[in-house]
Amino acid sequence: MTKSKTIWQTTNGWRLETVDLQRPDGQLEQKGIVRHPGAVVLVPLTAAGEVLMLHQYRLALDREIIEVPAGTRGWEEDWLLCAQRELREESGHRADHFIELGDLWPAPGVSDELMKLFLATELTPDPLPQDFDEDISVRPYPLPELVTMALDGRLQDAKSVAAILRAHHHLEASNNQ
Amino acid sequence: MTKSKTIWQTTNGWRLETVDLQRPDGQLEQKGIVRHPGAVVLVPLTAAGEVLMLHQYRLALDREIIEVPAGTRGWEEDWLLCAQRELREESGHRADHFIELGDLWPAPGVSDELMKLFLATELTPDPLPQDFDEDISVRPYPLPELVTMALDGRLQDAKSVAAILRAHHHLEASNNQ
Repeated sequence: MTKSKTIWQTTNGWRLETVDLQRPDGQLEQKGIVRHPGAVVLVPLTAAGEVLMLHQYRLALDREIIEVPAGTRGWEEDWLLCAQRELREESGHRADHFIELGDLWPAPGVSDELMKLFLATELTPDPLPQDFDEDISVRPYPLPELVTMALDGRLQDAKSVAAILRAHHHLEASNNQ
Repeated sequence: MTKSKTIWQTTNGWRLETVDLQRPDGQLEQKGIVRHPGAVVLVPLTAAGEVLMLHQYRLALDREIIEVPAGTRGWEEDWLLCAQRELREESGHRADHFIELGDLWPAPGVSDELMKLFLATELTPDPLPQDFDEDISVRPYPLPELVTMALDGRLQDAKSVAAILRAHHHLEASNNQ
């Protein structure tokens, strides 16, 4: 494998690198690798048992999708500070309690992105401004309805499927103790 | 939004495009969008109730991970033919029965990739050659163990977490009918 080469980078987020792999026939094949600072994924749960979900326009899909709040970490940013910042930017709430729900790789075939998942509780309205290119509305959904949507395919965002099902499992296990 | 521009493309898979978005201050900010032909994700279930999982080296992460068989579709390839091909290439088995488990977007913030998930049953050994750059070993895991791993974070691959939990839910629902 030869050294990697940076092809393109965002202002302060991920960058695309390429490496050349040698094929069995001796030819080189160029592979793309996304280098990513990581992201946080939040399940903001209200005292009433509802999750604050986003209806968000996604440019890559050219449509609005339903997903949990999430956001890219700064390269050197603390994970928990990032979680608090993104929660305030995207859901307009801060949380006084965060519970880790494990990690995810969203696209290990092309990217080194690591996502850290959190259940966020004890919510209080405390908004931060959204990014200029975000088009988000916040809507509460009962957690059991989201579990059904994750399992029957109505929820299609991969990180949201994993986060909702892990949050539900965590709460069930806590209630049974 | 200005027209998109192709920055880089793989031999026959995804390509990176950029678009310029105008910021509120009038400056342009370049956004990257991955255009992707889509992928299939398989849960190959044996008659003994085990799932054929892969231990696969991933270049982007520079480590081996545990995941379900999956693979990129050709741009014009039929989804079910793609599922059968990838299953034979990666698990060494063909399946006589496929059940759809809904769709996923692995990375809607940057990519238009759509994944179609399938439960694959009635397996028979029938391998196809692996891609030259794949380093895969196939290992059967009991489905209940994988469900626990998906929920407690030991399974970190996002598509695998969703696919395993949807497959388990489908089988539970079928058994209760």
